[in-house]
Amino acid sequence: MIVTFGEAMIRLTPPDHRRLVQAYTLDVEIGGAELNTAVGIAQLGHPVRWVSRLLDAPMGHLIANRTQEAGVDTRFIQWTSTGRVGVYYLEVGASPRPSRIFYDRAESAIAQIQPGMLPWSEIFRDQRYFYVTGITAALSKGAAEAVLEALKAARQAGLTTVLDPNYRSKLWSVEDAAAWLQQAIHHVDVLVSNPEDIERFFNVKASEVEAGARETATRYSLKAVALTLRETPSVWRNTISALVFADGTSYHGPTVEVEIVDRLGTGDAFVSGLFHGMIQNNWQRAVDYGVACAAIKHTIQGDLPWLELSEVDDLLQGGGMRIRR
Amino acid sequence: MIVTFGEAMIRLTPPDHRRLVQAYTLDVEIGGAELNTAVGIAQLGHPVRWVSRLLDAPMGHLIANRTQEAGVDTRFIQWTSTGRVGVYYLEVGASPRPSRIFYDRAESAIAQIQPGMLPWSEIFRDQRYFYVTGITAALSKGAAEAVLEALKAARQAGLTTVLDPNYRSKLWSVEDAAAWLQQAIHHVDVLVSNPEDIERFFNVKASEVEAGARETATRYSLKAVALTLRETPSVWRNTISALVFADGTSYHGPTVEVEIVDRLGTGDAFVSGLFHGMIQNNWQRAVDYGVACAAIKHTIQGDLPWLELSEVDDLLQGGGMRIRR
Amino acid sequence: MIVTFGEAMIRLTPPDHRRLVQAYTLDVEIGGAELNTAVGIAQLGHPVRWVSRLLDAPMGHLIANRTQEAGVDTRFIQWTSTGRVGVYYLEVGASPRPSRIFYDRAESAIAQIQPGMLPWSEIFRDQRYFYVTGITAALSKGAAEAVLEALKAARQAGLTTVLDPNYRSKLWSVEDAAAWLQQAIHHVDVLVSNPEDIERFFNVKASEVEAGARETATRYSLKAVALTLRETPSVWRNTISALVFADGTSYHGPTVEVEIVDRLGTGDAFVSGLFHGMIQNNWQRAVDYGVACAAIKHTIQGDLPWLELSEVDDLLQGGGMRIRR
Amino acid sequence: MIVTFGEAMIRLTPPDHRRLVQAYTLDVEIGGAELNTAVGIAQLGHPVRWVSRLLDAPMGHLIANRTQEAGVDTRFIQWTSTGRVGVYYLEVGASPRPSRIFYDRAESAIAQIQPGMLPWSEIFRDQRYFYVTGITAALSKGAAEAVLEALKAARQAGLTTVLDPNYRSKLWSVEDAAAWLQQAIHHVDVLVSNPEDIERFFNVKASEVEAGARETATRYSLKAVALTLRETPSVWRNTISALVFADGTSYHGPTVEVEIVDRLGTGDAFVSGLFHGMIQNNWQRAVDYGVACAAIKHTIQGDLPWLELSEVDDLLQGGGMRIRR
Amino acid sequence: MIVTFGEAMIRLTPPDHRRLVQAYTLDVEIGGAELNTAVGIAQLGHPVRWVSRLLDAPMGHLIANRTQEAGVDTRFIQWTSTGRVGVYYLEVGASPRPSRIFYDRAESAIAQIQPGMLPWSEIFRDQRYFYVTGITAALSKGAAEAVLEALKAARQAGLTTVLDPNYRSKLWSVEDAAAWLQQAIHHVDVLVSNPEDIERFFNVKASEVEAGARETATRYSLKAVALTLRETPSVWRNTISALVFADGTSYHGPTVEVEIVDRLGTGDAFVSGLFHGMIQNNWQRAVDYGVACAAIKHTIQGDLPWLELSEVDDLLQGGGMRIRR
Amino acid sequence: MIVTFGEAMIRLTPPDHRRLVQAYTLDVEIGGAELNTAVGIAQLGHPVRWVSRLLDAPMGHLIANRTQEAGVDTRFIQWTSTGRVGVYYLEVGASPRPSRIFYDRAESAIAQIQPGMLPWSEIFRDQRYFYVTGITAALSKGAAEAVLEALKAARQAGLTTVLDPNYRSKLWSVEDAAAWLQQAIHHVDVLVSNPEDIERFFNVKASEVEAGARETATRYSLKAVALTLRETPSVWRNTISALVFADGTSYHGPTVEVEIVDRLGTGDAFVSGLFHGMIQNNWQRAVDYGVACAAIKHTIQGDLPWLELSEVDDLLQGGGMRIRR
Repeated sequence: MIVTFGEAMIRLTPPDHRRLVQAYTLDVEIGGAELNTAVGIAQLGHPVRWVSRLLDAPMGHLIANRTQEAGVDTRFIQWTSTGRVGVYYLEVGASPRPSRIFYDRAESAIAQIQPGMLPWSEIFRDQRYFYVTGITAALSKGAAEAVLEALKAARQAGLTTVLDPNYRSKLWSVEDAAAWLQQAIHHVDVLVSNPEDIERFFNVKASEVEAGARETATRYSLKAVALTLRETPSVWRNTISALVFADGTSYHGPTVEVEIVDRLGTGDAFVSGLFHGMIQNNWQRAVDYGVACAAIKHTIQGDLPWLELSEVDDLLQGGGMRIRR
Repeated sequence: MIVTFGEAMIRLTPPDHRRLVQAYTLDVEIGGAELNTAVGIAQLGHPVRWVSRLLDAPMGHLIANRTQEAGVDTRFIQWTSTGRVGVYYLEVGASPRPSRIFYDRAESAIAQIQPGMLPWSEIFRDQRYFYVTGITAALSKGAAEAVLEALKAARQAGLTTVLDPNYRSKLWSVEDAAAWLQQAIHHVDVLVSNPEDIERFFNVKASEVEAGARETATRYSLKAVALTLRETPSVWRNTISALVFADGTSYHGPTVEVEIVDRLGTGDAFVSGLFHGMIQNNWQRAVDYGVACAAIKHTIQGDLPWLELSEVDDLLQGGGMRIRR
Repeated sequence: MIVTFGEAMIRLTPPDHRRLVQAYTLDVEIGGAELNTAVGIAQLGHPVRWVSRLLDAPMGHLIANRTQEAGVDTRFIQWTSTGRVGVYYLEVGASPRPSRIFYDRAESAIAQIQPGMLPWSEIFRDQRYFYVTGITAALSKGAAEAVLEALKAARQAGLTTVLDPNYRSKLWSVEDAAAWLQQAIHHVDVLVSNPEDIERFFNVKASEVEAGARETATRYSLKAVALTLRETPSVWRNTISALVFADGTSYHGPTVEVEIVDRLGTGDAFVSGLFHGMIQNNWQRAVDYGVACAAIKHTIQGDLPWLELSEVDDLLQGGGMRIRR
Repeated sequence: MIVTFGEAMIRLTPPDHRRLVQAYTLDVEIGGAELNTAVGIAQLGHPVRWVSRLLDAPMGHLIANRTQEAGVDTRFIQWTSTGRVGVYYLEVGASPRPSRIFYDRAESAIAQIQPGMLPWSEIFRDQRYFYVTGITAALSKGAAEAVLEALKAARQAGLTTVLDPNYRSKLWSVEDAAAWLQQAIHHVDVLVSNPEDIERFFNVKASEVEAGARETATRYSLKAVALTLRETPSVWRNTISALVFADGTSYHGPTVEVEIVDRLGTGDAFVSGLFHGMIQNNWQRAVDYGVACAAIKHTIQGDLPWLELSEVDDLLQGGGMRIRR
Repeated sequence: MIVTFGEAMIRLTPPDHRRLVQAYTLDVEIGGAELNTAVGIAQLGHPVRWVSRLLDAPMGHLIANRTQEAGVDTRFIQWTSTGRVGVYYLEVGASPRPSRIFYDRAESAIAQIQPGMLPWSEIFRDQRYFYVTGITAALSKGAAEAVLEALKAARQAGLTTVLDPNYRSKLWSVEDAAAWLQQAIHHVDVLVSNPEDIERFFNVKASEVEAGARETATRYSLKAVALTLRETPSVWRNTISALVFADGTSYHGPTVEVEIVDRLGTGDAFVSGLFHGMIQNNWQRAVDYGVACAAIKHTIQGDLPWLELSEVDDLLQGGGMRIRR
Repeated sequence: MIVTFGEAMIRLTPPDHRRLVQAYTLDVEIGGAELNTAVGIAQLGHPVRWVSRLLDAPMGHLIANRTQEAGVDTRFIQWTSTGRVGVYYLEVGASPRPSRIFYDRAESAIAQIQPGMLPWSEIFRDQRYFYVTGITAALSKGAAEAVLEALKAARQAGLTTVLDPNYRSKLWSVEDAAAWLQQAIHHVDVLVSNPEDIERFFNVKASEVEAGARETATRYSLKAVALTLRETPSVWRNTISALVFADGTSYHGPTVEVEIVDRLGTGDAFVSGLFHGMIQNNWQRAVDYGVACAAIKHTIQGDLPWLELSEVDDLLQGGGMRIRR
């Protein structure tokens, strides 16, 4: 029903808040924006397919296997004999030391992609949604073009397209990102972002968030704009919320205070929950489940949102913090 | 001096807040309401005996060995060749994801108990107190009858009987629990509970906690009623307190804010501290040590309260949070 | 192409050769005879489907997820709300202390199966082989009948049926096993066993292994009989081999000395390799790959044979023990 | 029934054959010659009491608790407010690098003992055997005298006394050890040693082991002399055996090849098995169980022999190396 | 440029907030007040030398190696064949259970020091600062004298001397400490302390902190007095700050709320940051970097401040708590 | 005294013989041929300097820090802002599954080197030996030229040059390697290799090893040729030896059977021991210590040879396999 497309890396994290220079073991997780979202969608019970390119070596198979473990369809992973499997190192912080990520992702198999390499019409057959982020486009020139190719093919095949710009300054400049987004936005139905990024890339002032969402939607004729909101009083405790502007209406999600086990992939989990509502054509449910999935993801180790639908429901119904026996 | 009677299980916990589906190792602890209380009593320096039935296999001996490790007398464990050693799985949460427990305890050796199987008069010889919870009664029909048998035998042997209903909805219905409790309460001297349960089982309104304790004590001619109180603003931070109604007086324990390492067994640790005061016939001390033991238990891994009397004293004297060197 | 049917349990192993009574953490693996074989088949590159019944709880999903991780089709797992997820504890030995297994598998979801519960005609559609072991039949009366039902349905659907009696004395008596096998053997095309078991159940003297295989095949009109052979000079070092009698000919596999990381599931891995040859209608290849897969499995942690086809090839071509860079 | 007396230390071992300079975690075990023997006796099912002095701090309680865990009576541990809890570091080797031990045991609570400190007549009431090693005597002058005091008190109370010289060159010189042993031997009934030590201390040539045992027994009017024998072809594989000379007869134990998980405490486990036979007044059984317990101990992590009587029986009956299910 | 002098111990910490009696593994760190400060100085980019005495055994080399790892010059470590390597055990708490430290440091190689043993004039050649704490002086009589010797030699060689009294009640009495400090203060240029200690040892009322610093500086003709300030509302969350009085002026550092990963060594990290400013003759920078280094140290496992200068800068510039990618 | 030059990578190893696809944690080590040799030299007590290029990020500093930890001079590491820190994954095998290495080392900082980048004359000032392997040359064209540059500069500065071709087929073809070696050999004094490589690259038949060494030495006017010899009967047990041809004489090292904890870096440790003898101008000692260091390295976790000189001596004097207390 849903197709996502992007990179996945092996994540290596020193345990127990250790720094990398103090690491004698590293915890192994996999992660990637669109992969994370796909896993959340699968956990919520919907069919989902993740498309990527991976090196045919144990490091690549580790990623594919664990994607399958989470119930995501991997049949359209393209296996290569060249390119790397990217790695990223995470140092988990505590106030006043923020967490840090060190990427070692250059020259991955998917960064070597060129338009025409993937069979999009076959990939999109009988599917309803396509999701991709700006990270995939930022990997290389070829990747930027391949994402455009995919967005167009998805639209042509009748899919609803969803894009999160998800800006990463290590991968491309604001200028390059903005230029690509100005092209891409015309093939997009639903935009997922945050106030900073819509200001940065679409020049929509974020001072008044709701108006910003409305203006962005209107200017680019989008079906919907979803914006996530976050306050960061400390490294171990954040407050999150979101709003969706769609059909001329603003839908507000709940505001949730979170105790943070793993901050990574929480934005991607938001998108998983958003799809849960979108599939049911219910924008209020979309923003509610988006916030609830993102909130719960903060409490789950690794980038992948190992959610259960029943606990998301429970949270939205105010189930409370007591032990469930 | 004190006898407790009940089930113990092997507890299996994925480390580092992982979910069960993410578990590649499990931490091994043992736990059981009456066992936990017995361990706390032993750590506070009092002789205590734990009675149970266990399968004669390494899983059963693991439980008995670690009970001995904590200084509890295990000579009245009845070893069996049938029945299982129950297991429970714990997922440790973080706000807004509550912790979860999955029990796999059916058909344990103690659930197969029948009245007449245990030599109560021998067990109670030269003892002063008997403690049991509703969990033991809930394990099976035979267990419910065996607990009644034990309560009667204890009274007959001159012991003071203490009961915590400790309702578990997975084990029996409210109706079955209430029916059993209405029988049992007549063989009980001291009731340990919480506002929800005295409302649920004894139909005593909990809106005014102190009055509830008084009414329960009066109605059932109890020596004392102890009620524990908890606020749960987040998964990692709770506030606890308690009161005891005895001798026509209400005794209030301190209110303590806790940072939670392990939430399990904190109610059982309360009872350990309560006994510390009861033994000295001092109800104020009972409620104070009950709250202090429960508070410290929140900071200790596993179900067992590995307390030291001196640190409980230190807490009650306002020792503060600085490092002890 | 291949369907296997049986139980899977969570395996809990104290690390570093510890005994259970010394365990403070347990390594988590999943295992089950037919599941193990299915995983090996998938790793060798063939489509394979594992059929089972599992409790709809995290313990059940852990099993299903990791089965998917290994590339096995799980769509015909039947999810239940009753029954347990079985557990088994493994103590890894060293000479002269043999390894030990303690099963806690009674009342699992699959032990509660009855004939008619699983949609065999749908399961077998477009499949070529069906594999099951006597362990599944031994779980309960219902399971014994369900396996017979499945064998008949498989034959009717045109599949080749393969059976390994795999006797477990904790599950049933030799008499009960023999009685069931005398029924089952008439619906079997290929028998996988060892000299002890063909003597025990089919009364075929194992003193001369090759003749035993021949006699068994002839007596029951089997397409093939495969027998595995093992010498156990120490706990950490074994020697294994096998032979297949088929088409009136004996095919001998290589004899391989193994350094043992994990002894479990090695017989099941043999069957995986056997299928690799059977699929190609090449009995010599079947016995060779069977032995090679079993040999390599001894070096892999857990019950699941995380093999690579290229390394099995390499072993059969005498690649040697030097590091592969 | 049996009393043992001596030091116990916390053992710290870098995992996975790491050297100390490579250690980022250390495995925690407890060990001490007479403690190890006591634990083995308890595991074989006999009542046993371990006497020592320990610092009243968590490091001391860790030792006492784990001694209780193994079923050993700890009531005669004398708690002190001065002295240390000794530590020893173990580096586990592999051929050609032998294992190494670094002791940090000076000034332990038991090294500060003086004669008169322990209530021997109370300790020995209703007991049958007393076991001590030369290590305890070697700890300090006071300890040497206290051991002599204990041996005399034991004899006076009607106990059979058993001594293993167990020479440690880091603790005392050969001369000091010999001088002490020449005093002590006159209060000893059963001597446990090895060919090197009876040559070194009693000047009995070990070239012919059986004759050496006989001569030692005769010269000192001993009830029995037990000698353990070991071949060390590699660090991971040894061959062990033993003989006992008693009642004018030589009793030979089996010769067992062992795969080594943990070499420490194997001589102490021999003495545990020896007691199992001595209690039954059966010297053949004593040497057989001695060798079998020692052999199995090589496969068990830590110094403590977590044996089961049934597996010792099984080994002596030639049970073989196959998995026990 | 900077020389520090003192003891280092091996620190052993049960993981995951476990108590010592619950420890089956211990995390290994090294720590010592002056060593910690030296490491922080090295991480900030300045040449620094740590002087000590260590036993020539793997436990001693572990300390020296890890000191080198952090970039500290170890050439003036004096290797001994007698004395111990001290150990300390840390139990990490949670409210309301404070963290606890159990020292086992008596008779370490450095406690056996006597004046004249170390070549101070060689050690101080071409160096600018000397730092030592009262802990070193408290180790033994010889150590107290050796520190005085070192302070005098440093002054003579033209170095600026910095002292933190760092009172440890387990090592000496307040009277002994005060007597020594009254001698030492006359050889000190910069005093680092806290309000409690300047009241305790110099009889300067701490009720008004700024005035206390001023009075202490004036009375003893110190170049500067630095005082650290801490609030301890819970075990996992503290608030810290500091002030420096120098040149007739008070310099206030920022107030920082910290989430605590490891509380140890935070005062020592303050001194590292202080040196960063002192070297630049900038007292405002000294107090700012002192507080920032101390704050970040709370988030770093172990005693050693594995800081990066750029992140200290970032904190002082208000960089915020968001992930750094 | 000795300078080595080359790459170092972070090594990531799944623990407990796990495969990469089964890895949930990875053990972190550092390794690199010339680094490993340098560490061994430092452990044997000789001054040694390792020259490399590293990315100025925590992954690079991890390598430099741990090199310092082992006592190696790192002042000539060149820090870069481009290029990667290479990684390699190790799967530890067991017979019949050989160990496997997966390199991810392309585009490391040192692979980007060009001649002229490193200050060789400064690096070589006051040094006696220069050691490099063919691996460094194989990293890139620039690296191949830089190694030649270094060899020439070393000779010019009066150093003795030592080269191990150390062929890695993943890095370059036999042809490319041979071409480079034919150039390099003219700047080499001592060649370290094995029979396969001298046949492969210098066309010297290895059938008669001693003659091969002699012929190679003569043909290229080398001071010495050292050849290592290995038999690989299983993955966990090898037999090693070596010979040196120098001064017209063959020097044979001992033959040692090893139990393998970690096979990596054993050839590099041989070179460390070789230097120990070379420095003393004693070729017999060189080959003896080479073999002994290599043998002991097989028992040490990681690539780095954490040796002690005294244990190497002990091995060469036939110390035996008993525990050292």
